[in-house]
Amino acid sequence: MGQEIRNRRIVMASRPAGAPVPGNFRLEEVEEPLAPETGLRLRTLFISLDPYMRGMMDEGPSYVTPLNPGEVMRGDAVSEVIFSRHPGFSVGDIVLGYTGWQSFPHSHGDGLRKLDPAVAPVSTALGVLGMPGMTAYVGLLEIGAPRPGETLLVAAASGAVGSAVGQIGRIKGCRVVGIAGGPEKTRHVREDLGFDVALDHRAPDFAARLKEACPEGVDIYFENVGGRVWALAFPLLRQFARVPVCGLIAQYNGLPPGGGEGPGVPQLMHDVLRKRLRIEGFIVSDFEAREKEFLRDMGAWVASGRVKYREDVVEGLENAVPAFIGLLEGRNFGKLLVKL
Amino acid sequence: MGQEIRNRRIVMASRPAGAPVPGNFRLEEVEEPLAPETGLRLRTLFISLDPYMRGMMDEGPSYVTPLNPGEVMRGDAVSEVIFSRHPGFSVGDIVLGYTGWQSFPHSHGDGLRKLDPAVAPVSTALGVLGMPGMTAYVGLLEIGAPRPGETLLVAAASGAVGSAVGQIGRIKGCRVVGIAGGPEKTRHVREDLGFDVALDHRAPDFAARLKEACPEGVDIYFENVGGRVWALAFPLLRQFARVPVCGLIAQYNGLPPGGGEGPGVPQLMHDVLRKRLRIEGFIVSDFEAREKEFLRDMGAWVASGRVKYREDVVEGLENAVPAFIGLLEGRNFGKLLVKL
Repeated sequence: MGQEIRNRRIVMASRPAGAPVPGNFRLEEVEEPLAPETGLRLRTLFISLDPYMRGMMDEGPSYVTPLNPGEVMRGDAVSEVIFSRHPGFSVGDIVLGYTGWQSFPHSHGDGLRKLDPAVAPVSTALGVLGMPGMTAYVGLLEIGAPRPGETLLVAAASGAVGSAVGQIGRIKGCRVVGIAGGPEKTRHVREDLGFDVALDHRAPDFAARLKEACPEGVDIYFENVGGRVWALAFPLLRQFARVPVCGLIAQYNGLPPGGGEGPGVPQLMHDVLRKRLRIEGFIVSDFEAREKEFLRDMGAWVASGRVKYREDVVEGLENAVPAFIGLLEGRNFGKLLVKL
Repeated sequence: MGQEIRNRRIVMASRPAGAPVPGNFRLEEVEEPLAPETGLRLRTLFISLDPYMRGMMDEGPSYVTPLNPGEVMRGDAVSEVIFSRHPGFSVGDIVLGYTGWQSFPHSHGDGLRKLDPAVAPVSTALGVLGMPGMTAYVGLLEIGAPRPGETLLVAAASGAVGSAVGQIGRIKGCRVVGIAGGPEKTRHVREDLGFDVALDHRAPDFAARLKEACPEGVDIYFENVGGRVWALAFPLLRQFARVPVCGLIAQYNGLPPGGGEGPGVPQLMHDVLRKRLRIEGFIVSDFEAREKEFLRDMGAWVASGRVKYREDVVEGLENAVPAFIGLLEGRNFGKLLVKL
C-alpha cells in the first residue's frame, strides 16, 4: 500500500432555505492515496469563494449544475501538484482548476491550467486575472459596449467583478460611478481604484446622491446586485442604455415576496421600449473564446498598475463557511479567497 | 385672392384617461389657400393608423413628441400633390409623408418621399413596404437574429408588424408560431401567411396550447403586445433567447395596477441571468440607414409573393376615430388604413 494523504473537504450537508447557515455545510476528513487512479494529486493553496456558488446549492434549474447533499462544494482553486503520473504536469507545478473546497483534490488533468508565478501572484488567477476579472471584461466590453464620455454605473464596486468593471470603464474613457457598502469601501473605490464617484448605498440619502451623481443619466448599468440598487438605478437609465446582467447577489438567498422593490414588469417593459434599453444576461463561460485576449489585456493593465485589485484572504478551510455566508451579506472587502 | 380648399382634420380635443373615447377627438374644417406659403398642397389618399399613436396622446415622456390638445393627430399618410412650387415635386406625384389625420395637408417637401405606383399599390408604403414592414424587418433581423431551425413566437400575428415578422422568420428558416385573436385571424395566419402554427389567445386552453406549440421553448419572442401574452411567453424562453420589444399594445391605455400579470421583476431578472436572455427595445426610426436594404429585400419578397399582406381599409376621415379606438382593442384585421 502506498502513501496516504488526509483530504479535508467541505460538503453541502443540506440545502439552505434562504440564507445559508453553518449547519448546511459539513467538514469531512478522508484518507486517500497520494497516488490516485486519476493520475494527479494536488495540494490546494487558495480556494475562490464567489456569489454564484449560492446558486448550485438550490435544486435548480440554474446555470450551474445543482449540488446534491453530501457532495463537495464546487469552485475554482489554485493548487500545487504533489503527485503526477500525467505527462503534462510535474510535481511543483502551480495549477488553476475547478477542484472545489478541499485540501488535497485529485484530478485527471482535464481543465487544469498551469500558472506562471513569475507573471503575477498565483492567487490572481482566481480574481482579477481569473473568472471575476474576465466576467468584468467580457460583460463590459461585449454587452456594455462603453464609449468615451458615457456614464457607467457599477454596483458592488469594491468586489472582485465590480472593481474591475469600473477600472476598465475608466480605461475606455467612461465617467464611472461606483456603489459600495460603507465609508471604508467607498473610500477605496474612489481613492485606490480611481472611480470618479463612489456612493455608499447604506447612506440615508443614497437615492438622492445617486441621482445627483448621474445628472445626465446612466449609459451602462453593470448589474451584479439586484434588489434596491436595481430599483434606484433603473429609472436613471438613458436612451439606448445597456444593462449587462452578471449577478443578482441581493436575491440569491431567495426572491423577495411579491414583485420586489421598484417598478413592476409593465413599467420595466415600457421603459425598455421607450428608451430602447438592452438588458442582457451573460455568464463568463459563454465567452471562453475571448480568454487569450482577456489575459493579454488584463495582464498588461495589472502589470502597469492601470487595474488594481484587492484580495480578502481568510486562512484555513474551516473558515470557508463563515466567509462564504459573509460574502452573501457583502461582508467581504475585495476578492474573497481561502488560503490553506 | 387665390383658390381655397376646405381642409378637414382631426385634432386631439383632450387627453384620454385610459382607453381613448370619441370625445377625445374633434373633426374640424378650415379654409386654407390651395397655394400655401410652404409651397406644396397635398390631397390625402390613405392615412395610416398605428398603435404607437396612442403614446403621443399622453403627456410623455415618450419616444414620440407628445401632442397638445388642439393639435392635429400626427402620422404617416400617402397623398397626391395638387399644388407645387417645389422643384422636386409635380402635381400628380404620389408621396409618403408624416402629414397627419387631415384631407389637404400642406408641406415644405422635407421628409416627403415620392412613390412609384408601378412598383406596388401606394397604400403598401404605409404597411408592408413602410414603417410596420420595416419595424418587422429590422427588429427581427437586427435584434432577433434568427437562425434556421429556431422557434420564433410572434404576438399580434395578423397585424401589420406581426404578419411580416412571421413571414420573414419563415424565409430565414425558423419554425414560426403566431398568436392572434379569434378563429378567423388564426386561420389567416396559418393558411394565408404560412405560419407553422397559429394560436387563438382567446381560446380557454391558450396557455396549454402555447406550451404544446413550443415543445423546445422559444428562441425569439417578438414582443409587440405585453400583458398576458408576455406573462405566458416569458417562461417559455430558452437559453440565449432574444426578445425584440417593438410595442406593448396591451398596456398603451395605461399600466395595469400593481406588477401586472406573470412573474415580477426579480423573477424576470433571475431568468435573464440564468438563461442569458437579451431583452431589447427598438424603434424603427433608429434604423433609417437600413431603409434601402429593407425596400430592396421586402420589395422583392412582396413582388414574388413570399411575403403577403392584408389591409383593413376604412373609408372616410370621420371613421378614423372609431377605427383607431378599435385598433387598440385588436378589432382591426390587417394593416389599418383610412381611405379618403
